[in-house]
Amino acid sequence: MNARSETLVLPAPLPLDGGGELARVEVAYETYGALNEDRSNAILLCHALTGDQYVASPHPITGKPGWWERMVGPGKPIDTDRFHVICANVIGSCMGSTGPASEASDGRPYAMRFPVITIRDMVRAHVGLLDALGIEQLHAVVGGSMGGMQALSLAANWPERASRVLVIASTSRHSAQNIAFHELGRQAVMADPRWNQGDYYGGEAPDSGLAVARMAAHITYLSEEALTGKFGRNLQDRDAKSFGFDADFQVESYLRYQGSGFTQRFDANSYLYITRAMDYFDLAEEHGGKLADAFAGTSARFCLVSFDSDWLYPTAESRHVVHALNAAGAAVSFVELSAPHGHDSFLLDVPALDRVIGGFLG
Amino acid sequence: MNARSETLVLPAPLPLDGGGELARVEVAYETYGALNEDRSNAILLCHALTGDQYVASPHPITGKPGWWERMVGPGKPIDTDRFHVICANVIGSCMGSTGPASEASDGRPYAMRFPVITIRDMVRAHVGLLDALGIEQLHAVVGGSMGGMQALSLAANWPERASRVLVIASTSRHSAQNIAFHELGRQAVMADPRWNQGDYYGGEAPDSGLAVARMAAHITYLSEEALTGKFGRNLQDRDAKSFGFDADFQVESYLRYQGSGFTQRFDANSYLYITRAMDYFDLAEEHGGKLADAFAGTSARFCLVSFDSDWLYPTAESRHVVHALNAAGAAVSFVELSAPHGHDSFLLDVPALDRVIGGFLG
Repeated sequence: MNARSETLVLPAPLPLDGGGELARVEVAYETYGALNEDRSNAILLCHALTGDQYVASPHPITGKPGWWERMVGPGKPIDTDRFHVICANVIGSCMGSTGPASEASDGRPYAMRFPVITIRDMVRAHVGLLDALGIEQLHAVVGGSMGGMQALSLAANWPERASRVLVIASTSRHSAQNIAFHELGRQAVMADPRWNQGDYYGGEAPDSGLAVARMAAHITYLSEEALTGKFGRNLQDRDAKSFGFDADFQVESYLRYQGSGFTQRFDANSYLYITRAMDYFDLAEEHGGKLADAFAGTSARFCLVSFDSDWLYPTAESRHVVHALNAAGAAVSFVELSAPHGHDSFLLDVPALDRVIGGFLG
Repeated sequence: MNARSETLVLPAPLPLDGGGELARVEVAYETYGALNEDRSNAILLCHALTGDQYVASPHPITGKPGWWERMVGPGKPIDTDRFHVICANVIGSCMGSTGPASEASDGRPYAMRFPVITIRDMVRAHVGLLDALGIEQLHAVVGGSMGGMQALSLAANWPERASRVLVIASTSRHSAQNIAFHELGRQAVMADPRWNQGDYYGGEAPDSGLAVARMAAHITYLSEEALTGKFGRNLQDRDAKSFGFDADFQVESYLRYQGSGFTQRFDANSYLYITRAMDYFDLAEEHGGKLADAFAGTSARFCLVSFDSDWLYPTAESRHVVHALNAAGAAVSFVELSAPHGHDSFLLDVPALDRVIGGFLG
């Protein structure tokens, strides 16, 4: 499919919302499909919290298929025979773009010296990449979950850079409950003595704490119905309860597996920084307190998709964005899809989502 | 109010659902109000996961008022001028009843040598207490959350021991999501190196892990609406975000406070054992798979109360119990109360609950 892995060094320091700038910024990205001559067929895909640029290529650490293989490829809803798809690892992450594990100017990892960044800072780095690639206007920016926040931020802050904006299972701000779950995860990481104030590179990483954080997050990604349908009270490889503390129930085994698998591929400090960026996200606040003002004068077409079983970013959050877009006079379509998987529906087999995405991208 | 603190040593070893028995069982309990001559005015109150017997007396460690002061006392809905109220610390806990911190026969704390117990085991110890007190039939057994599980277990397994059964914000079985949150908490405790396979008595306790577990639980006790109403995205004692990892948001500060406050008064191993007992709870399974069979031939009157904002044990769980009671031909009333606080509503100021309780107790 003509997949390429690249890393760009931004030509100038990146100004940050928190003040100051990040001196030398690398942006690691994948592309799929060919860029056309007038550079008008590019789609920027934005990944979620623990996602990465390996949308439709095997993950270099786990060897697993890309996270959106089902959506991106020749003849697929995001058709790489027609579109040039770009996905960049967000800054703050750990798959090649500059983050807390990267070397600072003194040659040692930033660790907690890395600045606290925002969703807009991540998007600012993406825009730097588009500039370097000579792409003035995207055919579309597309993202689910934190990817949707990036898509909204691009639309609000660089409105001329995308003609279509597709936001799936996302929100314009983190709620108190969203913040609470992230804080829980951060405290789990920081409670691990191996975290050592973030200075663990070259030694043992705080895998136990990070695994607990991942378990907490996973519970929020699935609906109660999905957990019941998938696991119920079924026992794991045994006929009776053990009257001990092993993983008697399948759901326990599943969570332990999700927790421990995650630590192989993700940096704990990145988890702290990216969750912080999401918690700080409040698009209305960035634009004087009124969300409609974030989209004033936009000429992009928007599409918002939510899932009825998503309790992390429920439909009301998408509807809130749609109302603001309506107030701003933007062209917007909105659909709530029915799927049992909860927030994770955007990554799973939901044929209606394929049709919405294919149709919206035109 | 005539409050008394007592500890009873059960006269015989306690048989356990997991096999074997617990040799020397102490049951610490409080009583309020006088027992009448024919011993017919006793109400057994069953406490929740991290609750204790200090219903309407100051907590001996924290000095805080009892957890149900608003409900229990002279002239209150559970009127100690009329009823003799008994509340016993569950076995497995840490406020005086035998649990993992208690001395085993070798003079050292049980720690993880304590047997895994069930809700029915806790109730078996309560029944031992009632036997010792010469109380053949309770006027009522009352409990919220895990207390409601105990009330249901008493009604199902010792049907002659209570003439009224009041179950608030509870369930007849733990769902996959309930188990998932508890497993998350247990993993947080066990990830703390100070847990040391449970052998931490006399040294430093795994407070960091236990605090994370408590934070996770607290999120489930409050509704999304309650968190938004109480905290929203409000900042804590500051005008702007710090661009750091302090508790910028009020909800973060609240969770940290809840987590650290809890570790003063609760034993981490008790947390493991009691959550395990709750996860194992499945009243239908105990009675051949059909919940109605658990209540066959009961002559007690039941009252089930749920809260519309409770997502831990939602109304559907209470309704499920009510249907089973209907199928068993039991006398049952059921009310879903509207309250914004989520699961914690049963502990908070919900005047409608006072009326339901007062009315049902007669």
